Amino acid sequence: MNGAKIDVLRLGHRIERDKRLSTHVGLSSALFNVENWYYSGEHDEHLEESISSVAKRWGAPTKVVFLESPYKFIRHYSGTTVHLTMYGAPHKEVITELREENLNRVLIIVGGPKVPGHVYGDVDYNCAVGYFPHSEVSALAIFLYELLGDEIIYAKDPNAEMKLQGGEKGWGKKQKRRGLKSN
Amino acid sequence: MNGAKIDVLRLGHRIERDKRLSTHVGLSSALFNVENWYYSGEHDEHLEESISSVAKRWGAPTKVVFLESPYKFIRHYSGTTVHLTMYGAPHKEVITELREENLNRVLIIVGGPKVPGHVYGDVDYNCAVGYFPHSEVSALAIFLYELLGDEIIYAKDPNAEMKLQGGEKGWGKKQKRRGLKSN
Repeated sequence: MNGAKIDVLRLGHRIERDKRLSTHVGLSSALFNVENWYYSGEHDEHLEESISSVAKRWGAPTKVVFLESPYKFIRHYSGTTVHLTMYGAPHKEVITELREENLNRVLIIVGGPKVPGHVYGDVDYNCAVGYFPHSEVSALAIFLYELLGDEIIYAKDPNAEMKLQGGEKGWGKKQKRRGLKSN
Repeated sequence: MNGAKIDVLRLGHRIERDKRLSTHVGLSSALFNVENWYYSGEHDEHLEESISSVAKRWGAPTKVVFLESPYKFIRHYSGTTVHLTMYGAPHKEVITELREENLNRVLIIVGGPKVPGHVYGDVDYNCAVGYFPHSEVSALAIFLYELLGDEIIYAKDPNAEMKLQGGEKGWGKKQKRRGLKSN
């Protein structure tokens, strides 16, 4: 997706029950350098701080923003909205259509315990990542990976405080045999 | 990976803290029809039941197996072992090497709160999915997706109790304009 800005919205966060999963959704978004990571449900400063501090130290530009009115936000979003749900169309079909549009901005939406029925009609696309109930974390990761490719997940800000180049904890047996040197 | 059997091992499960994340790791494995989903740490019948029952009803062949001695299991595994860690080599490089071997069986290992240092030397490959700390769920999902492709996540057992074909909850606005009919 050349030059399109990607945002992610995580619906219906619950502080106690979802804190780790929502953090994983947020960090998986930052992995792909999404611009804004929106969430709704319960306002959670700890969640915001966890995601923002990792993004900052590791060189991802992602900003975390809490939304009071996520459904209004979806309806008025100035871009294309894609809701990830196992009841959607196969993700490669949706991505082909996204590529045919001349997109400036895409909002990817993940639930959330109970996504209200109207959301299915409010968005531009309902998009499946497999016809199987699994995980909003892996659905989002696979979708972003198919949309954006693999380079972005290795190419973070070179001026970031934290960075890796592989091998920091040693290599495996077959890697050593190939002569990889540990960093 | 033509014909290779894929297993996944989730290290160090803790019942209280990890129940939802481990379930997501398990279901993301079942999404790709992995053969055995091993886990270690605390024995958790509820976790086993959650993953097994979804796999069964939705037509994935995945079996859930608890391991008392995961490190011994890794060392004696009769196949190639791949440990997903941000300190590894880029996943596409590792997958290229896996494809060059004539593999029957691959074990993909994900942590786990603290993976002991010896694991890095016991496995065949330490494999990164991005040089960025994110999520064992998305790391596994992206790795399996790159290794196995997208068809498998839509093609489940046609005789399964539960199945989908898309559109069960209606289509989005741009999908309706294209004339998609809801199922």
